[in-house]
Amino acid sequence: MRRVNAVLSGLGNIGSRFIGVLDRKRDVLRDKYDLDVCLVAAADVEGGAVAPDGLDLARVAGLRGTSIGTLGRPGLTILDILREVDADIFFEATPVNLKTGEPGLSAIRAALGRGMHVVTTNKGPLALAYGELRALARASSVQLRHSGAVLGGLPTVNIGQRDLAGATILRVEAQVNLANSYILHQMARGMSYFDAVRSAQEQGCCDKDEALDVEGWDAVIKLVILANSVLGMDAHLDDVQREGIAHLRAEAVLDVRASGRVLKYVAEAAYQENGRYDLRCGLRALPPDHPLAALGPLQMGVVYTSDLYGTISAAIREEEPTPSASSMLRDLLTIYG
Amino acid sequence: MRRVNAVLSGLGNIGSRFIGVLDRKRDVLRDKYDLDVCLVAAADVEGGAVAPDGLDLARVAGLRGTSIGTLGRPGLTILDILREVDADIFFEATPVNLKTGEPGLSAIRAALGRGMHVVTTNKGPLALAYGELRALARASSVQLRHSGAVLGGLPTVNIGQRDLAGATILRVEAQVNLANSYILHQMARGMSYFDAVRSAQEQGCCDKDEALDVEGWDAVIKLVILANSVLGMDAHLDDVQREGIAHLRAEAVLDVRASGRVLKYVAEAAYQENGRYDLRCGLRALPPDHPLAALGPLQMGVVYTSDLYGTISAAIREEEPTPSASSMLRDLLTIYG
Repeated sequence: MRRVNAVLSGLGNIGSRFIGVLDRKRDVLRDKYDLDVCLVAAADVEGGAVAPDGLDLARVAGLRGTSIGTLGRPGLTILDILREVDADIFFEATPVNLKTGEPGLSAIRAALGRGMHVVTTNKGPLALAYGELRALARASSVQLRHSGAVLGGLPTVNIGQRDLAGATILRVEAQVNLANSYILHQMARGMSYFDAVRSAQEQGCCDKDEALDVEGWDAVIKLVILANSVLGMDAHLDDVQREGIAHLRAEAVLDVRASGRVLKYVAEAAYQENGRYDLRCGLRALPPDHPLAALGPLQMGVVYTSDLYGTISAAIREEEPTPSASSMLRDLLTIYG
Repeated sequence: MRRVNAVLSGLGNIGSRFIGVLDRKRDVLRDKYDLDVCLVAAADVEGGAVAPDGLDLARVAGLRGTSIGTLGRPGLTILDILREVDADIFFEATPVNLKTGEPGLSAIRAALGRGMHVVTTNKGPLALAYGELRALARASSVQLRHSGAVLGGLPTVNIGQRDLAGATILRVEAQVNLANSYILHQMARGMSYFDAVRSAQEQGCCDKDEALDVEGWDAVIKLVILANSVLGMDAHLDDVQREGIAHLRAEAVLDVRASGRVLKYVAEAAYQENGRYDLRCGLRALPPDHPLAALGPLQMGVVYTSDLYGTISAAIREEEPTPSASSMLRDLLTIYG
């Protein structure tokens, strides 16, 4: 059996669920993949724990807000751990920070520098420093995987990188933001913008501060990660033409509906004659047979149009964060499969 | 630069287009993948050609019905070639034969036995002898890839094998047969069965002999390949409960439509308590928010429901066979990427 020593940073929604998945899938990992994944250290914002023989996964998954420091040392940071502990792979699942990428960015740098594979669902470091991190991974001959960082559990990046191999991608169109989808969906049924925002917040698909969603930033981040990891660009947040939906007039939505089209918030990359891509996030009135038009308000989806593979679309219905968390298992098995 | 010596069998729609794609993508293969793919031999039903320094790809792609034997030796067979020629990879693209799997099956056996990777779009050998061929590939430490054998250019097998890694797949539902989709689509608009079949034949999505499609065999074949390659089964054609659509009454279709549901021909695998899957191809009246319900009549699509990754669907709009042919390039780059 191949033993893999793992370190985790972040025990929120995604991190805890991922550890729960690792625990539930222990037999599958052993029997089907010949893998024994051993969590030798973990940290959250308040503390950390180190256990060379492996932390008890069920116990870590069940902390539910209590710091992992209670199983180890309060105040122990992930950077302390990454300096001291030898491990094969680092899972990074701290919250998104779009200004600095921290604490994820420094931790990913440290892990790559120490020759660990890195798997992350954290959009911050990827949106801010993808090129640098990819170069670090190459220099250390390790992998940087983030199949769950763009559209939750949907293998958006994998399809683009692997299944469109050899093709020129002509267009990427994606419904990446649940809050905006849900708001537009409710407005198309007659709700005002403010009621629709409140409804999205009640539904749990929109933050209490809706700005990141309705101003388009969440979509911009995801598009930049896609552009860098799939389209081979070196794109930054300000390379994306960004249109928000804040204070959208109800009539504008209903007019589109009356015309037989479907108003969607779309993140889009379009190939240009010069070999570059135009990047844009904003409203589009789609014809009803467009693959994104059929998506429900709580689905995420992507459409790839390429010179070789026709028009390939993919979508996910993700009722809770387990698919996003499981993307870290997928990435682990891609590395060690 | 890494040189890959390739052999091809079959120069019909798929084989010729694939060679055309290899020719067009020569620079991409060299610059991005450091690969020089050299077609050292090829055969069709009338003859073959061998060229240790590589056949001219543009010339092979442009034969348009003239036998490759005219560039080499009439009567030279693929089995002769596979005995004599040293190569790294074998591309098999002869027509589907559901009775014997030939000539593809013997050629794939021979290539695997000689230690060549095999890439094929040919459903016959995969449906009839998947287990044997996979074992042969393992014994020779080579890969058997067929990402284009189930739903054309859609990476159905790849998504199931790689992106759902670690999960228990609970259900697979797929629209795999264009002829049946198109016939049902036309009948839902009021056409009789016979007019709809004729319309599908004129559209080019149904064979002149429609039996393989409307009796469900084409769907059964694809489901068996999926079951074996993605679900880990050892399934055979007669393990699938098969319902055809021959002589379907127009009223039956219109009744479903009137009920607000969408009548689709669905290939389906459903996980059972005992860890096995029930396999079935037949009609289903889908609710309008089912991912397959939104597919157009000329799309193919698959829906995977699993314990970890929610509900993931994928679809392709493939106007001509280039995506299917390009799947062999995708598989080549999976092996040598």
